[in-house]
Amino acid sequence: MDKKINFTILLNKNSTVPIYIQLYEYIREQIVNNNFKASNKLPSIREAASILKISKTTIENAYNQLIVEGYIENISKKGYFINDIGNFNYSKDFNSFKSISSSNYNELVYDNNGIDDTSFNAELWKKLYNRVLTDKLTNIYTNGSPQGEYDLRYEISEFVNNIRGGRTTPEQVIIGAGIQYLLGILAGMIKHNYNSVSIESPGYKKAEYIFEDYMFKINHIPVNSDSFNIDCLKTLNSNLLYVSPSHQYPIGNVMPINKRLELLKWASNVNGLIIEDDYDGIIRYDGMPIPCLQGLDNNDCVIYLGSFSKTLLPSLRISYMIIPKKLIKSYENIKYKYTQSTSKIDQIVLSLFIKEGHITKHLRKIRRIYKKKNTALTSYFNDKYNNTVKIINSDSGFHIVVEVITCKKYQDILETCKKNNILVEIVDVFPNKMLLSINYSGIKIEQITSFVDKLMQSIS
Amino acid sequence: MDKKINFTILLNKNSTVPIYIQLYEYIREQIVNNNFKASNKLPSIREAASILKISKTTIENAYNQLIVEGYIENISKKGYFINDIGNFNYSKDFNSFKSISSSNYNELVYDNNGIDDTSFNAELWKKLYNRVLTDKLTNIYTNGSPQGEYDLRYEISEFVNNIRGGRTTPEQVIIGAGIQYLLGILAGMIKHNYNSVSIESPGYKKAEYIFEDYMFKINHIPVNSDSFNIDCLKTLNSNLLYVSPSHQYPIGNVMPINKRLELLKWASNVNGLIIEDDYDGIIRYDGMPIPCLQGLDNNDCVIYLGSFSKTLLPSLRISYMIIPKKLIKSYENIKYKYTQSTSKIDQIVLSLFIKEGHITKHLRKIRRIYKKKNTALTSYFNDKYNNTVKIINSDSGFHIVVEVITCKKYQDILETCKKNNILVEIVDVFPNKMLLSINYSGIKIEQITSFVDKLMQSIS
Repeated sequence: MDKKINFTILLNKNSTVPIYIQLYEYIREQIVNNNFKASNKLPSIREAASILKISKTTIENAYNQLIVEGYIENISKKGYFINDIGNFNYSKDFNSFKSISSSNYNELVYDNNGIDDTSFNAELWKKLYNRVLTDKLTNIYTNGSPQGEYDLRYEISEFVNNIRGGRTTPEQVIIGAGIQYLLGILAGMIKHNYNSVSIESPGYKKAEYIFEDYMFKINHIPVNSDSFNIDCLKTLNSNLLYVSPSHQYPIGNVMPINKRLELLKWASNVNGLIIEDDYDGIIRYDGMPIPCLQGLDNNDCVIYLGSFSKTLLPSLRISYMIIPKKLIKSYENIKYKYTQSTSKIDQIVLSLFIKEGHITKHLRKIRRIYKKKNTALTSYFNDKYNNTVKIINSDSGFHIVVEVITCKKYQDILETCKKNNILVEIVDVFPNKMLLSINYSGIKIEQITSFVDKLMQSIS
Repeated sequence: MDKKINFTILLNKNSTVPIYIQLYEYIREQIVNNNFKASNKLPSIREAASILKISKTTIENAYNQLIVEGYIENISKKGYFINDIGNFNYSKDFNSFKSISSSNYNELVYDNNGIDDTSFNAELWKKLYNRVLTDKLTNIYTNGSPQGEYDLRYEISEFVNNIRGGRTTPEQVIIGAGIQYLLGILAGMIKHNYNSVSIESPGYKKAEYIFEDYMFKINHIPVNSDSFNIDCLKTLNSNLLYVSPSHQYPIGNVMPINKRLELLKWASNVNGLIIEDDYDGIIRYDGMPIPCLQGLDNNDCVIYLGSFSKTLLPSLRISYMIIPKKLIKSYENIKYKYTQSTSKIDQIVLSLFIKEGHITKHLRKIRRIYKKKNTALTSYFNDKYNNTVKIINSDSGFHIVVEVITCKKYQDILETCKKNNILVEIVDVFPNKMLLSINYSGIKIEQITSFVDKLMQSIS
């Protein structure tokens, strides 16, 4: 116990891989291979900086990434320790409140929903669209492939492998107009072997609705701001699971690596399938994106869901589902039952947008834009509302999660927010306080403070 | 019996309504109101022309429209007689062969599928698209309405009312990326009150798949080249029906008016719902389009399905479902469960395309184009293959139905057609002959004869 670890890594300062990532990958690998054992202590930041002759910030970045992914832990005044990735403690609190959003009964355009209106290069999109529409190769006069155009499936597969750490081929990719449509196809594909599904609670309701429609029995797995209850999952007689490990929706947790591995082990033991909803895993502000579960999976049991709605444009409808290799045959059997739901033209435009490198620039740009908004938002909360608001999660994606002290009824809060055109999701309700998810992607940077003031008037 | 009818209509030669339509509407109204009774005889074409002082062709056009819709009958050498629209004889033949298409296991681009490649004004679409994409009013940065953009719902409602004889309001219109997605929403909406559905056999398989997915019990109602078996429908303990009355898919029948009215009466008696698939009812070559069932319905029990895939562009994905007023409340209850699946941008472009009158010009243009192809196709069959091929249906839409004498196995025919990139659907199989549905929309006019020769080599 408490054994001190020595680093034996040779950092390559001429590599294109940033130093902090080299260090992070080195430590991660040692933990996975059980060379760095549970409870062992890492060098302090100052020590590591001195040993490796790099800056303290670089060490901190690497350590923070490992913390957020659950590989290590920072124990206050003691230092950084390796977590037991085989046997992690998780909270067993059960949360019976069903999260509810102010959008449920309203068709308003919310000020804070949508995407930043400077993020999308409409001129470039136009140019590509015009090119594709009259390019003979597109052949807009015929039906598209039910699975999606090969060019786009190829680009998405490369994209997920490079940016999200996936391990996929174009044959595994299915394109569709939204996650819901794709889940419908999946349900049609697997319903003979699976009749129940376990879903995070609170979680992504729109996925749950589809499983309900397809008559799956729904099990709710409690999630709180600590973590996801795997014990509860194991007691259930169900081998299909829907999770959002990179950024739990709506609470915002990152699922620690030990839980990820435990989930994959569970799936392999019960011959199960894990549906990984990676709705905004690509956008993290501190450190790199958390690699997806799909890329960790050695047993071919993860179904990966991604979308371009938030990262590119919500008015386009392009989502994708990446199925395990073992399901390809089942998909082939039902493929011609379903018509493609995404415009063939949009598919080819997007494939060019990725192929010609625009997506990479675009992602860099939006990360910058949303980080600025995120910082402005959290700073203003901390400066002006630190007596009543505690920020729980704000390190990735397009919403933050806060705990607010309030005596108002949640119904009244939803009503007032609706009137004020503010989209909020009440994640949990406690005596005198509440857990809220607040979307900020659509607010202009100069309106952040007035938005927060309006929100706080509606809430407290 | 055999009572001769006198016309008491005053035709308005200055009206914008063509004379033959005035006459057709007059006769239809007299029949519906039981002023012209069953078995009564209409004036001969020559007599009518002389009485009304209009050309024989005009009379013929009016009569033909009434025949195709089932109001009257032409008995050879005897004349034109009013049908009993309350008690029509229909065939009870049952057809156990399940229609099968060469596309079922193939992702080829078929030469004969798709639309005419000169029919779509890509330059105009580009211009509208470019305008919409950067128009602030579009607000491409936010999610679209789950029901569909109001502007498009308004235009579609007007369009269906004007061109298809519907009686609809924008509140009843739901937009989605394909009929299948919309049927999924419908299934989610009504599954608590309906658990089985009756479907034409042969019929539109892709609709059936969705009902199967949603665990509806499926009843097959036999359809042959005479008609649809309503007696069979009435014996079933099901009050949900899926039909294509304007142009039965794939056989190509027009459902006679008496059957339409009988269907509506049935629905009203059993508190049922009729789903009317009007996939290509807009395109008829001889006479006007058959008015849709939705417009005849006085009991608010018809769900109308339409699409722009064949009439505009298959690579866009814009379809619509028009629900009865009594279902609006059920829809409102589930509306926010489903994300919109059609691109908001495409929706607004299409609404402009309709609003600015382009759709009317476009429909005139494609009717001309496809009529030419249709004529070339049927003439060539009649000229060269009249010993083996009999044309069963060719008066509307994008496919014709033929009876072919052949000794080949249908499996071999499908295989050969697939190899030759020809999409055919084998509708029925008899000893030494077959009923085939042949799509011709995608064949260039100058290739019609070589297409037919290739097809006939594959078949016989």
